[in-house]
Amino acid sequence: MIPRFSAWGLTGMPEIGPGDDLVALIAEAAAAQAAADPELALRDGDILVVTSKIVSKAEGMQVSAADRERAIAEDSVRIVAERVHPGGTFRIVETRQGLVMAAAGIDMSNVPEGTALRLPADPDASARALCAGLRDRLGISIGLVVTDTIGRPWRVGQTDMAIGAAGLQLTDDLRGENDANGRPLHVTQAVVADEIAGAADLVKGKTSNIPVAVLRGLERYVRGLDGPGARTLTRTGDDDMFRFGSAEAYRLGYEAALAEMKAKRKQRQD
Amino acid sequence: MIPRFSAWGLTGMPEIGPGDDLVALIAEAAAAQAAADPELALRDGDILVVTSKIVSKAEGMQVSAADRERAIAEDSVRIVAERVHPGGTFRIVETRQGLVMAAAGIDMSNVPEGTALRLPADPDASARALCAGLRDRLGISIGLVVTDTIGRPWRVGQTDMAIGAAGLQLTDDLRGENDANGRPLHVTQAVVADEIAGAADLVKGKTSNIPVAVLRGLERYVRGLDGPGARTLTRTGDDDMFRFGSAEAYRLGYEAALAEMKAKRKQRQD
Repeated sequence: MIPRFSAWGLTGMPEIGPGDDLVALIAEAAAAQAAADPELALRDGDILVVTSKIVSKAEGMQVSAADRERAIAEDSVRIVAERVHPGGTFRIVETRQGLVMAAAGIDMSNVPEGTALRLPADPDASARALCAGLRDRLGISIGLVVTDTIGRPWRVGQTDMAIGAAGLQLTDDLRGENDANGRPLHVTQAVVADEIAGAADLVKGKTSNIPVAVLRGLERYVRGLDGPGARTLTRTGDDDMFRFGSAEAYRLGYEAALAEMKAKRKQRQD
Repeated sequence: MIPRFSAWGLTGMPEIGPGDDLVALIAEAAAAQAAADPELALRDGDILVVTSKIVSKAEGMQVSAADRERAIAEDSVRIVAERVHPGGTFRIVETRQGLVMAAAGIDMSNVPEGTALRLPADPDASARALCAGLRDRLGISIGLVVTDTIGRPWRVGQTDMAIGAAGLQLTDDLRGENDANGRPLHVTQAVVADEIAGAADLVKGKTSNIPVAVLRGLERYVRGLDGPGARTLTRTGDDDMFRFGSAEAYRLGYEAALAEMKAKRKQRQD
C-alpha cells in the first residue's frame, strides 16, 4: 500500500460578508466543481480546510481600521513581546484563543478599505458548526480545519496552522510507540492538523481568492464531532519556556533584582 | 484552473548505512514504483522530500549513544533554554545549521541500539548533491527538500520543517504584492518549503519506514540549483525576539542589575 493524498483548491467561492451561510456557499462551490469534474465531488473521508478570514467575515468580526488598536487590546490576554519601530509598535500577544501571534491575529489584508478583521471568537466552535452543517447537508463524514497564517520564532515568514478543528484526529501521538527498530520513539507527537493546514495553503494561496481547500486520502484522521479541538494544540502556562520575549524577561529580572535590593536596604534601615 | 497537487510515499527503500548511495537507492525505489504504476514515474516538476535521518545515516553521522552529550555540545552554537528534569537536562540549542531545536537535533529513534544520529553537517549541501545527482541520473528537473521533525514554542508536538533544500523556490514572498482587493498584503512571506515538508510527513510517517515522499503539481516552485538554501529560512541574531528562554533572559537581567549595583557601590567606596 502506497500512502498518498491529493489536495485541491475550492474555486468559485464568492466574497463573504456578515451573516453569509458558509455551509451553503461551500456546498454550492463544491457542487459546481463536481459538475465540471465528478472526481472532485466531496466524499466520505475528505478533509476541508477553511481560511479563518472567511469564517471571521461570515461571523461579522469586521471592525473599523480606526478601532484596530482597541480590538488588539480586547483580543489579547497578555503581551508576550513587543518592539517599537518607526511606524508604531509591533506586538506579539497571547490571544483569547490561546494563540501566540502578532497583533492578536487582526488582519488588514483581503478586507475592504478602512476595515480590519478579528479572528473568530471561538474557532473550534466555528469548525464544529461548519463540519456538522456540511456533514448534515451532504450526508458524508468529513473533517474540517480552520486555519490562520502565523509566524514562528527562529524561522522567517509564516505558515498556515490549525486554529480550529472538528471531526478530526489532530495529532499522531507516538508516545509509547516503537520505531521500525522496535525502540521507543523520542519524537512523540506529530501535529497532523498543522501539517494539513500547511498542505492546504499550497493550493489556496493568499492572492488568488481560494479560501477553502479539500484534502483527500487522509480519511484515517477523520473522526466524530466530539473530539478535542485545535485549542488543545496551543501550549501556554507553566509548560511554556518562551512565555516572554527575551527583552521582556530580561527587564523583569532586572527590575526584580532592583526591588529585592531596595527591600533589603529598607530592612537594614528599619 | 483548479490548483492541485498530490503526494505519495516512496516505498521500498532499504535500511540506510554509512556510504550508501542515496541517489541510486532513491532512483531504484522510484523505478520499482513506476514499474507497478506508470503514473508514479518521476517527472519534471516533481518535488522529492527526504527525511534527514537517511541523509545522516548515509553520511556516517552515527555516534555511540554514550557520546550523545558530547555530540550535542559539539553541534551547538549556544544554549537557548534549558530545564532540569528527573531524567536529566532538556536543552534547546541553536545548532551549527542555524536551527533552534531540542538536543541539537540528535536523535535516538529509528537508529540501531546503542547509537545516536547527528544532523547532516550541511543539509543544504546534502540537498544540492542529492538534487543534482537525481537530475543527472533521471534527466528531469526536480526540487528537493531535506526535512527534520522540530518543535515550536506555544504549540504542542512537532511538525516536519525544511532544513535543507535545492532546486526550489522556498517562499512565496508577497511583500509588495496586493491582495484580492488591491490592498497591500501585511502577511508577507509564506514559507512554502516548510509547508511542503509538513505535507510530505502526512505520507511518510515515522513508524512506517518511508523516508522519502514525492509531491506532484507544485512545479511552479521548481528552480535551478543555484538558489538560496533552507539556511535562509532560519532567523537568529538581532532579529530574533526569542533569543533566550524566559527563565534564562530573566536570570541575565537579574544578574546584570546585581553587577551594576556592585559596580556603583564600589565607585562610591573608592
